Amino acid sequence: MKIVRYETAGGAPAWGVLDDGVVLAARGTPFLDLEPTAEPAGKVRLLAPVTPRTVLCVGRNYRSHAEEFGNKVPEEPLLFLKPPAAVVGPDAEVVYPALSRRLDPEAELVLVIGRTARHVAAADAWAVIGGYTCGNDITARDIQKSDGQWTRGKGFDTFCPIGPWVETDYDPTDVAVSCTVDGERRQDGRTKDLIFPIPYLIEYITRFTTLEPGDVILSGTPEGVRPVEPGNTITVEIDGLGSLTNTVVAEDPARLAGS
Amino acid sequence: MKIVRYETAGGAPAWGVLDDGVVLAARGTPFLDLEPTAEPAGKVRLLAPVTPRTVLCVGRNYRSHAEEFGNKVPEEPLLFLKPPAAVVGPDAEVVYPALSRRLDPEAELVLVIGRTARHVAAADAWAVIGGYTCGNDITARDIQKSDGQWTRGKGFDTFCPIGPWVETDYDPTDVAVSCTVDGERRQDGRTKDLIFPIPYLIEYITRFTTLEPGDVILSGTPEGVRPVEPGNTITVEIDGLGSLTNTVVAEDPARLAGS
Repeated sequence: MKIVRYETAGGAPAWGVLDDGVVLAARGTPFLDLEPTAEPAGKVRLLAPVTPRTVLCVGRNYRSHAEEFGNKVPEEPLLFLKPPAAVVGPDAEVVYPALSRRLDPEAELVLVIGRTARHVAAADAWAVIGGYTCGNDITARDIQKSDGQWTRGKGFDTFCPIGPWVETDYDPTDVAVSCTVDGERRQDGRTKDLIFPIPYLIEYITRFTTLEPGDVILSGTPEGVRPVEPGNTITVEIDGLGSLTNTVVAEDPARLAGS
Repeated sequence: MKIVRYETAGGAPAWGVLDDGVVLAARGTPFLDLEPTAEPAGKVRLLAPVTPRTVLCVGRNYRSHAEEFGNKVPEEPLLFLKPPAAVVGPDAEVVYPALSRRLDPEAELVLVIGRTARHVAAADAWAVIGGYTCGNDITARDIQKSDGQWTRGKGFDTFCPIGPWVETDYDPTDVAVSCTVDGERRQDGRTKDLIFPIPYLIEYITRFTTLEPGDVILSGTPEGVRPVEPGNTITVEIDGLGSLTNTVVAEDPARLAGS
Protein backbone atom coordinates (compact mmCIF):
# COMPACT_ATOMS: atom_id res chain seq x y z
CA MET A 1 0.00 0.00 0.00
CA LYS A 2 1.19 3.52 -0.84
CA ILE A 3 0.41 6.01 1.95
CA VAL A 4 0.32 9.71 1.05
CA ARG A 5 -0.50 12.94 2.81
CA TYR A 6 -2.13 15.68 0.81
CA GLU A 7 -4.00 18.93 0.84
CA THR A 8 -6.81 20.13 -1.36
CA ALA A 9 -7.58 23.77 -2.15
CA GLY A 10 -8.78 25.30 1.11
CA GLY A 11 -8.70 21.99 2.99
CA ALA A 12 -6.65 20.77 5.95
CA PRO A 13 -3.88 18.18 5.37
CA ALA A 14 -5.25 14.62 5.18
CA TRP A 15 -3.91 11.07 4.87
CA GLY A 16 -4.69 9.04 1.79
CA VAL A 17 -3.75 5.99 -0.24
CA LEU A 18 -2.35 6.10 -3.76
CA ASP A 19 -4.11 3.43 -5.82
CA ASP A 20 -3.17 3.03 -9.48
CA GLY A 21 -2.31 6.72 -9.76
CA VAL A 22 -5.45 7.93 -7.96
CA VAL A 23 -5.38 9.35 -4.42
CA LEU A 24 -8.17 7.84 -2.30
CA ALA A 25 -9.24 9.32 1.03
CA ALA A 26 -8.33 7.04 3.96
CA ARG A 27 -9.37 6.27 7.51
CA GLY A 28 -7.40 4.96 10.46
CA THR A 29 -3.91 5.75 11.74
CA PRO A 30 -0.97 5.91 9.32
CA PHE A 31 1.64 3.14 9.61
CA LEU A 32 -0.67 1.27 12.01
CA ASP A 33 -4.11 0.54 10.52
CA LEU A 34 -4.72 3.09 7.75
CA GLU A 35 -6.97 1.83 4.96
CA PRO A 36 -8.35 3.44 1.82
CA THR A 37 -11.98 4.38 1.31
CA ALA A 38 -13.60 4.17 -2.15
CA GLU A 39 -13.67 7.96 -2.33
CA PRO A 40 -11.19 9.73 -4.68
CA ALA A 41 -9.63 12.78 -3.04
CA GLY A 42 -9.85 14.78 -6.27
CA LYS A 43 -7.22 17.35 -7.20
CA VAL A 44 -4.57 17.30 -4.49
CA ARG A 45 -1.09 18.57 -3.72
CA LEU A 46 1.09 15.91 -2.12
CA LEU A 47 2.80 16.79 1.17
CA ALA A 48 5.58 14.92 2.96
CA PRO A 49 3.98 11.51 3.76
CA VAL A 50 5.22 11.63 7.37
CA THR A 51 4.97 14.11 10.27
CA PRO A 52 7.87 12.92 12.42
CA ARG A 53 8.70 14.08 15.89
CA THR A 54 12.21 12.65 15.49
CA VAL A 55 14.27 12.72 12.28
CA LEU A 56 17.33 10.51 12.80
CA CYS A 57 20.02 10.31 10.14
CA VAL A 58 22.97 8.00 9.60
CA GLY A 59 26.18 9.58 8.27
CA ARG A 60 28.79 7.81 6.16
CA ASN A 61 26.87 4.55 5.85
CA TYR A 62 28.21 3.70 2.37
CA ARG A 63 31.95 3.01 2.23
CA SER A 64 32.41 4.76 -1.12
CA HIS A 65 30.73 7.96 0.17
CA ALA A 66 32.75 8.02 3.41
CA GLU A 67 35.92 7.76 1.37
CA GLU A 68 35.03 10.36 -1.27
CA PHE A 69 35.32 13.14 1.35
CA GLY A 70 38.45 11.62 2.90
CA ASN A 71 36.60 10.35 5.99
CA LYS A 72 37.26 7.06 7.76
CA VAL A 73 34.67 4.34 7.45
CA PRO A 74 32.94 4.51 10.86
CA GLU A 75 33.19 1.66 13.36
CA GLU A 76 29.71 2.41 14.69
CA PRO A 77 26.76 4.20 13.04
CA LEU A 78 27.32 7.95 12.99
CA LEU A 79 24.00 9.46 14.09
CA PHE A 80 22.65 12.97 13.84
CA LEU A 81 19.28 14.68 14.15
CA LYS A 82 17.45 17.16 11.94
CA PRO A 83 14.76 19.45 13.36
CA PRO A 84 11.28 18.36 12.17
CA ALA A 85 10.91 21.89 10.73
CA ALA A 86 13.37 20.83 8.01
CA VAL A 87 10.92 18.31 6.49
CA VAL A 88 9.22 19.25 3.22
CA GLY A 89 7.34 17.22 0.64
CA PRO A 90 7.62 16.40 -3.06
CA ASP A 91 7.92 19.41 -5.39
CA ALA A 92 8.58 21.76 -2.46
CA GLU A 93 11.36 24.31 -2.87
CA VAL A 94 14.71 23.72 -1.18
CA VAL A 95 16.03 27.06 0.06
CA TYR A 96 19.77 27.66 -0.45
CA PRO A 97 20.71 29.63 2.70
CA ALA A 98 22.31 33.04 2.26
CA LEU A 99 24.78 31.91 4.97
CA SER A 100 26.14 28.98 2.90
CA ARG A 101 28.47 28.73 -0.09
CA ARG A 102 28.08 24.99 -0.76
CA LEU A 103 24.85 22.99 -0.81
CA ASP A 104 24.87 19.23 -1.48
CA PRO A 105 21.90 16.90 -2.03
CA GLU A 106 22.22 13.32 -0.69
CA ALA A 107 19.82 10.61 -1.91
CA GLU A 108 18.73 8.23 0.87
CA LEU A 109 16.33 5.40 1.63
CA VAL A 110 14.05 6.50 4.49
CA LEU A 111 12.70 4.02 7.08
CA VAL A 112 9.34 5.02 8.59
CA ILE A 113 8.64 3.67 12.08
CA GLY A 114 5.34 1.81 12.45
CA ARG A 115 5.19 1.09 16.18
CA THR A 116 6.80 2.36 19.37
CA ALA A 117 10.32 0.95 19.45
CA ARG A 118 12.84 0.74 22.31
CA HIS A 119 15.46 -1.97 22.92
CA VAL A 120 14.53 -3.80 19.73
CA ALA A 121 16.91 -6.64 18.85
CA ALA A 122 18.11 -6.79 15.23
CA ALA A 123 16.18 -10.04 14.75
CA ASP A 124 12.94 -8.22 15.57
CA ALA A 125 13.72 -4.99 13.71
CA TRP A 126 11.57 -5.49 10.60
CA ALA A 127 8.41 -5.61 12.73
CA VAL A 128 8.80 -2.00 13.94
CA ILE A 129 9.18 -0.54 10.44
CA GLY A 130 5.90 0.64 8.94
CA GLY A 131 7.17 1.53 5.47
CA TYR A 132 9.79 3.10 3.21
CA THR A 133 10.13 6.25 1.14
CA CYS A 134 12.67 8.49 -0.60
CA GLY A 135 14.61 11.20 1.23
CA ASN A 136 17.13 13.91 0.48
CA ASP A 137 19.63 14.83 3.21
CA ILE A 138 20.38 18.37 2.04
CA THR A 139 23.65 19.60 3.53
CA ALA A 140 25.29 23.02 3.77
CA ARG A 141 28.73 21.45 3.55
CA ASP A 142 30.69 24.55 4.56
CA ILE A 143 28.59 25.13 7.69
CA GLN A 144 28.65 21.42 8.58
CA LYS A 145 32.46 21.56 8.57
CA SER A 146 32.97 24.86 10.36
CA ASP A 147 30.39 24.18 13.10
CA GLY A 148 31.69 20.74 14.17
CA GLN A 149 28.27 19.66 15.39
CA TRP A 150 26.05 19.17 12.32
CA THR A 151 22.90 20.79 13.73
CA ARG A 152 22.87 23.83 11.42
CA GLY A 153 24.71 22.33 8.43
CA LYS A 154 22.13 19.55 8.15
CA GLY A 155 19.18 21.34 9.76
CA PHE A 156 18.07 24.46 7.87
CA ASP A 157 14.38 24.65 7.02
CA THR A 158 13.66 22.66 3.80
CA PHE A 159 16.82 20.51 4.22
CA CYS A 160 14.81 17.27 4.47
CA PRO A 161 12.60 16.55 1.44
CA ILE A 162 10.69 13.26 1.96
CA GLY A 163 8.22 11.40 -0.30
CA PRO A 164 6.30 11.05 -2.52
CA TRP A 165 4.62 8.11 -0.71
CA VAL A 166 5.35 5.53 2.02
CA GLU A 167 5.30 1.97 0.67
CA THR A 168 4.25 -0.50 3.35
CA ASP A 169 4.95 -3.74 1.40
CA TYR A 170 8.58 -3.58 0.41
CA ASP A 171 11.91 -5.40 0.53
CA PRO A 172 14.58 -2.70 1.03
CA THR A 173 17.62 -4.97 1.22
CA ASP A 174 18.94 -4.53 -2.34
CA VAL A 175 17.37 -1.62 -4.20
CA ALA A 176 18.86 1.14 -6.34
CA VAL A 177 19.12 4.64 -4.80
CA SER A 178 19.95 7.44 -7.23
CA CYS A 179 20.24 11.21 -7.39
CA THR A 180 19.84 13.14 -10.62
CA VAL A 181 20.40 16.91 -10.98
CA ASP A 182 18.94 18.62 -14.06
CA GLY A 183 18.93 15.26 -15.83
CA GLU A 184 22.55 14.36 -14.95
CA ARG A 185 22.85 11.16 -12.91
CA ARG A 186 25.24 11.74 -9.98
CA GLN A 187 24.59 9.09 -7.34
CA ASP A 188 23.81 5.50 -8.18
CA GLY A 189 24.07 3.14 -5.20
CA ARG A 190 22.42 0.00 -3.92
CA THR A 191 21.20 -0.59 -0.35
CA LYS A 192 23.04 -3.93 -0.19
CA ASP A 193 26.18 -1.77 0.24
CA LEU A 194 25.01 -0.16 3.50
CA ILE A 195 27.86 -0.58 6.00
CA PHE A 196 25.34 -0.95 8.86
CA PRO A 197 22.25 -2.71 7.50
CA ILE A 198 18.72 -1.82 8.57
CA PRO A 199 18.27 -4.37 11.42
CA TYR A 200 21.60 -3.27 12.92
CA LEU A 201 20.55 0.39 12.75
CA ILE A 202 17.22 -0.28 14.48
CA GLU A 203 18.91 -2.16 17.33
CA TYR A 204 21.65 0.46 17.70
CA ILE A 205 19.27 3.43 17.67
CA THR A 206 16.65 1.93 19.99
CA ARG A 207 19.34 1.25 22.59
CA PHE A 208 19.37 4.97 23.35
CA THR A 209 16.06 6.44 22.26
CA THR A 210 12.39 5.58 21.86
CA LEU A 211 11.09 5.80 18.29
CA GLU A 212 7.39 6.49 17.75
CA PRO A 213 5.13 5.74 14.77
CA GLY A 214 5.88 8.25 12.01
CA ASP A 215 9.45 8.92 13.15
CA VAL A 216 11.97 8.47 10.34
CA ILE A 217 15.50 7.21 9.86
CA LEU A 218 17.51 8.42 6.85
CA SER A 219 19.82 5.49 6.23
CA GLY A 220 22.82 7.15 4.54
CA THR A 221 23.88 8.20 1.06
CA PRO A 222 26.03 6.53 -1.64
CA GLU A 223 28.99 8.15 -3.41
CA GLY A 224 28.73 10.82 -6.06
CA VAL A 225 27.81 13.82 -3.90
CA ARG A 226 28.39 17.13 -5.66
CA PRO A 227 26.98 20.63 -5.09
CA VAL A 228 23.87 22.24 -6.52
CA GLU A 229 23.02 25.87 -7.28
CA PRO A 230 19.79 27.87 -7.22
CA GLY A 231 17.69 26.88 -10.22
CA ASN A 232 18.80 23.23 -10.18
CA THR A 233 16.19 20.48 -9.97
CA ILE A 234 17.09 17.46 -7.82
CA THR A 235 15.43 14.06 -8.21
CA VAL A 236 15.93 11.20 -5.75
CA GLU A 237 14.68 7.88 -7.13
CA ILE A 238 14.47 4.49 -5.45
CA ASP A 239 13.23 1.21 -7.02
CA GLY A 240 9.52 0.86 -6.25
CA LEU A 241 9.33 4.08 -4.24
CA GLY A 242 8.92 6.53 -7.10
CA SER A 243 10.84 9.77 -7.41
CA LEU A 244 11.14 12.81 -5.18
CA THR A 245 11.79 16.05 -7.06
CA ASN A 246 12.65 19.43 -5.54
CA THR A 247 13.98 22.67 -7.00
CA VAL A 248 16.64 24.82 -5.35
CA VAL A 249 15.88 28.52 -4.81
CA ALA A 250 18.13 31.19 -3.32
CA GLU A 251 17.20 32.61 0.07
CA ASP A 252 16.23 36.26 -0.09
CA PRO A 253 19.14 37.98 1.72
CA ALA A 254 16.78 40.77 2.77
CA ARG A 255 15.30 38.30 5.27
CA LEU A 256 18.58 38.52 7.17
CA ALA A 257 18.40 42.29 7.44
CA GLY A 258 17.70 42.13 11.15
CA SER A 259 21.12 40.71 11.82
CA MET B 1 1.72 33.06 35.70
CA LYS B 2 3.09 29.57 36.38
CA ILE B 3 2.03 27.05 33.70
CA VAL B 4 2.12 23.36 34.60
CA ARG B 5 1.17 20.09 32.94
CA TYR B 6 -0.16 17.33 35.13
CA GLU B 7 -1.95 14.05 35.32
CA THR B 8 -4.47 12.82 37.83
CA ALA B 9 -5.06 9.16 38.71
CA GLY B 10 -6.59 7.59 35.62
CA GLY B 11 -6.79 10.90 33.73
CA ALA B 12 -5.15 12.14 30.55
CA PRO B 13 -2.39 14.79 30.80
CA ALA B 14 -3.79 18.32 31.14
CA TRP B 15 -2.49 21.89 31.29
CA GLY B 16 -2.95 23.91 34.46
CA VAL B 17 -1.84 26.99 36.36
CA LEU B 18 -0.03 26.92 39.70
CA ASP B 19 -1.59 29.55 41.95
CA ASP B 20 -0.23 30.00 45.46
CA GLY B 21 0.73 26.32 45.65
CA VAL B 22 -2.58 25.03 44.24
CA VAL B 23 -2.89 23.61 40.71
CA LEU B 24 -5.94 25.05 38.94
CA ALA B 25 -7.38 23.56 35.75
CA ALA B 26 -6.84 25.85 32.74
CA ARG B 27 -8.33 26.59 29.32
CA GLY B 28 -6.73 27.92 26.16
CA THR B 29 -3.40 27.22 24.48
CA PRO B 30 -0.20 27.11 26.54
CA PHE B 31 2.30 29.94 25.95
CA LEU B 32 -0.31 31.74 23.84
CA ASP B 33 -3.55 32.41 25.72
CA LEU B 34 -3.79 29.86 28.55
CA GLU B 35 -5.70 31.07 31.59
CA PRO B 36 -6.69 29.44 34.86
CA THR B 37 -10.23 28.45 35.81
CA ALA B 38 -11.41 28.63 39.43
CA GLU B 39 -11.41 24.83 39.61
CA PRO B 40 -8.62 23.13 41.65
CA ALA B 41 -7.20 20.09 39.83
CA GLY B 42 -7.02 18.09 43.06
CA LYS B 43 -4.24 15.59 43.68
CA VAL B 44 -1.92 15.67 40.68
CA ARG B 45 1.46 14.47 39.50
CA LEU B 46 3.38 17.18 37.66
CA LEU B 47 4.71 16.32 34.18
CA ALA B 48 7.23 18.25 32.08
CA PRO B 49 5.48 21.62 31.48
CA VAL B 50 6.31 21.52 27.76
CA THR B 51 5.77 19.03 24.91
CA PRO B 52 8.39 20.30 22.44
CA ARG B 53 8.83 19.13 18.88
CA THR B 54 12.31 20.65 18.86
CA VAL B 55 14.75 20.63 21.82
CA LEU B 56 17.67 22.89 20.94
CA CYS B 57 20.64 23.16 23.28
CA VAL B 58 23.59 25.52 23.48
CA GLY B 59 26.96 24.01 24.41
CA ARG B 60 29.77 25.85 26.23
CA ASN B 61 27.83 29.07 26.75
CA TYR B 62 29.54 29.96 30.04
CA ARG B 63 33.27 30.73 29.76
CA SER B 64 34.15 28.98 33.04
CA HIS B 65 32.40 25.75 31.94
CA ALA B 66 34.03 25.71 28.49
CA GLU B 67 37.41 26.07 30.17
CA GLU B 68 36.88 23.45 32.89
CA PHE B 69 36.92 20.68 30.24
CA GLY B 70 39.84 22.27 28.34
CA ASN B 71 37.61 23.49 25.49
CA LYS B 72 37.99 26.78 23.68
CA VAL B 73 35.39 29.43 24.27
CA PRO B 74 33.28 29.22 21.09
CA GLU B 75 33.15 32.07 18.58
CA GLU B 76 29.57 31.25 17.64
CA PRO B 77 26.87 29.40 19.62
CA LEU B 78 27.51 25.66 19.59
CA LEU B 79 24.12 24.09 18.88
CA PHE B 80 22.89 20.54 19.29
CA LEU B 81 19.53 18.76 19.37
CA LYS B 82 18.03 16.24 21.79
CA PRO B 83 15.24 13.89 20.67
CA PRO B 84 11.90 14.93 22.27
CA ALA B 85 11.79 11.39 23.74
CA ALA B 86 14.52 12.52 26.15
CA VAL B 87 12.21 14.96 27.94
CA VAL B 88 10.92 13.99 31.41
CA GLY B 89 9.30 16.00 34.18
CA PRO B 90 9.99 16.82 37.82
CA ASP B 91 10.61 13.83 40.10
CA ALA B 92 10.98 11.46 37.12
CA GLU B 93 13.84 8.99 37.20
CA VAL B 94 16.97 9.65 35.12
CA VAL B 95 18.20 6.33 33.74
CA TYR B 96 22.00 5.81 33.81
CA PRO B 97 22.60 3.86 30.57
CA ALA B 98 24.32 0.48 30.80
CA LEU B 99 26.43 1.67 27.83
CA SER B 100 27.97 4.61 29.73
CA ARG B 101 30.60 4.96 32.43
CA ARG B 102 30.21 8.67 33.14
CA LEU B 103 26.98 10.59 33.58
CA ASP B 104 27.00 14.36 34.25
CA PRO B 105 24.07 16.62 35.13
CA GLU B 106 24.15 20.20 33.79
CA ALA B 107 21.84 22.86 35.26
CA GLU B 108 20.40 25.22 32.64
CA LEU B 109 17.88 28.00 32.16
CA VAL B 110 15.30 26.85 29.59
CA LEU B 111 13.60 29.29 27.19
CA VAL B 112 10.11 28.23 26.07
CA ILE B 113 8.99 29.56 22.69
CA GLY B 114 5.62 31.34 22.70
CA ARG B 115 5.03 32.05 19.03
CA THR B 116 6.29 30.82 15.66
CA ALA B 117 9.75 32.29 15.17
CA ARG B 118 11.90 32.56 12.04
CA HIS B 119 14.39 35.31 11.12
CA VAL B 120 13.79 37.13 14.41
CA ALA B 121 16.20 40.02 15.01
CA ALA B 122 17.80 40.20 18.46
CA ALA B 123 15.89 43.41 19.16
CA ASP B 124 12.60 41.53 18.74
CA ALA B 125 13.65 38.32 20.49
CA TRP B 126 11.87 38.77 23.82
CA ALA B 127 8.48 38.83 22.09
CA VAL B 128 8.81 35.23 20.83
CA ILE B 129 9.63 33.78 24.27
CA GLY B 130 6.55 32.52 26.13
CA GLY B 131 8.25 31.67 29.43
CA TYR B 132 11.14 30.16 31.36
CA THR B 133 11.79 27.02 33.37
CA CYS B 134 14.56 24.83 34.80
CA GLY B 135 16.32 22.15 32.76
CA ASN B 136 18.97 19.51 33.21
CA ASP B 137 21.15 18.64 30.21
CA ILE B 138 22.12 15.11 31.28
CA THR B 139 25.21 13.95 29.41
CA ALA B 140 26.89 10.55 28.97
CA ARG B 141 30.31 12.20 28.79
CA ASP B 142 32.19 9.13 27.55
CA ILE B 143 29.76 8.51 24.68
CA GLN B 144 29.64 12.22 23.80
CA LYS B 145 33.42 12.16 23.38
CA SER B 146 33.79 8.86 21.52
CA ASP B 147 30.89 9.49 19.11
CA GLY B 148 32.00 12.94 17.91
CA GLN B 149 28.43 13.95 17.09
CA TRP B 150 26.57 14.42 20.41
CA THR B 151 23.31 12.73 19.36
CA ARG B 152 23.62 9.69 21.65
CA GLY B 153 25.76 11.22 24.41
CA LYS B 154 23.17 13.96 24.98
CA GLY B 155 20.10 12.10 23.74
CA PHE B 156 19.28 8.96 25.73
CA ASP B 157 15.72 8.69 27.02
CA THR B 158 15.32 10.68 30.30
CA PHE B 159 18.37 12.90 29.52
CA CYS B 160 16.28 16.09 29.50
CA PRO B 161 14.41 16.77 32.78
CA ILE B 162 12.39 20.02 32.48
CA GLY B 163 10.16 21.82 35.01
CA PRO B 164 8.50 22.14 37.43
CA TRP B 165 6.58 25.05 35.83
CA VAL B 166 6.92 27.63 33.06
CA GLU B 167 6.96 31.19 34.41
CA THR B 168 5.54 33.65 31.89
CA ASP B 169 6.40 36.89 33.75
CA TYR B 170 10.13 36.81 34.29
CA ASP B 171 13.37 38.71 33.80
CA PRO B 172 16.03 36.06 32.98
CA THR B 173 18.98 38.39 32.45
CA ASP B 174 20.71 37.99 35.82
CA VAL B 175 19.41 35.04 37.85
CA ALA B 176 21.21 32.32 39.80
CA VAL B 177 21.36 28.82 38.22
CA SER B 178 22.52 26.04 40.54
CA CYS B 179 22.92 22.28 40.66
CA THR B 180 22.94 20.34 43.92
CA VAL B 181 23.61 16.59 44.19
CA ASP B 182 22.56 14.85 47.42
CA GLY B 183 22.70 18.21 49.19
CA GLU B 184 26.15 19.18 47.89
CA ARG B 185 26.16 22.39 45.86
CA ARG B 186 28.19 21.88 42.66
CA GLN B 187 27.18 24.48 40.11
CA ASP B 188 26.44 28.07 41.04
CA GLY B 189 26.30 30.43 38.05
CA ARG B 190 24.44 33.54 36.97
CA THR B 191 22.81 34.09 33.59
CA LYS B 192 24.55 37.47 33.21
CA ASP B 193 27.66 35.38 32.41
CA LEU B 194 26.15 33.73 29.31
CA ILE B 195 28.68 34.21 26.48
CA PHE B 196 25.84 34.52 23.96
CA PRO B 197 22.89 36.23 25.64
CA ILE B 198 19.28 35.26 25.00
CA PRO B 199 18.46 37.79 22.22
CA TYR B 200 21.60 36.76 20.34
CA LEU B 201 20.66 33.08 20.63
CA ILE B 202 17.14 33.68 19.30
CA GLU B 203 18.46 35.58 16.28
CA TYR B 204 21.18 33.02 15.58
CA ILE B 205 18.88 30.00 15.88
CA THR B 206 15.98 31.44 13.89
CA ARG B 207 18.34 32.17 11.00
CA PHE B 208 18.37 28.46 10.22
CA THR B 209 15.22 26.91 11.70
CA THR B 210 11.61 27.70 12.54
CA LEU B 211 10.74 27.47 16.23
CA GLU B 212 7.14 26.70 17.19
CA PRO B 213 5.23 27.40 20.43
CA GLY B 214 6.33 24.91 23.07
CA ASP B 215 9.78 24.33 21.53
CA VAL B 216 12.59 24.83 24.03
CA ILE B 217 16.14 26.17 24.09
CA LEU B 218 18.48 24.99 26.85
CA SER B 219 20.80 27.98 27.19
CA GLY B 220 24.00 26.38 28.53
CA THR B 221 25.48 25.35 31.87
CA PRO B 222 27.89 27.07 34.29
CA GLU B 223 31.08 25.53 35.70
CA GLY B 224 31.19 22.84 38.38
CA VAL B 225 30.09 19.82 36.30
CA ARG B 226 30.95 16.50 37.99
CA PRO B 227 29.54 13.00 37.57
CA VAL B 228 26.66 11.31 39.36
CA GLU B 229 25.98 7.68 40.21
CA PRO B 230 22.81 5.61 40.52
CA GLY B 231 21.04 6.56 43.75
CA ASN B 232 22.07 10.24 43.58
CA THR B 233 19.40 12.94 43.68
CA ILE B 234 19.97 15.97 41.44
CA THR B 235 18.30 19.34 42.03
CA VAL B 236 18.45 22.20 39.53
CA GLU B 237 17.30 25.49 41.05
CA ILE B 238 16.81 28.88 39.41
CA ASP B 239 15.70 32.12 41.11
CA GLY B 240 11.93 32.39 40.80
CA LEU B 241 11.56 29.17 38.81
CA GLY B 242 11.54 26.72 41.71
CA SER B 243 13.55 23.52 41.78
CA LEU B 244 13.66 20.49 39.50
CA THR B 245 14.59 17.27 41.31
CA ASN B 246 15.33 13.89 39.70
CA THR B 247 16.89 10.70 40.99
CA VAL B 248 19.39 8.60 39.04
CA VAL B 249 18.65 4.88 38.59
CA ALA B 250 20.77 2.25 36.85
CA GLU B 251 19.47 0.81 33.58
CA ASP B 252 18.59 -2.84 33.85
CA PRO B 253 21.31 -4.52 31.73
CA ALA B 254 18.88 -7.36 30.95
CA ARG B 255 17.10 -4.89 28.65
CA LEU B 256 20.14 -5.05 26.38
CA ALA B 257 20.01 -8.84 26.12
CA GLY B 258 18.88 -8.67 22.51
CA SER B 259 22.19 -7.18 21.49
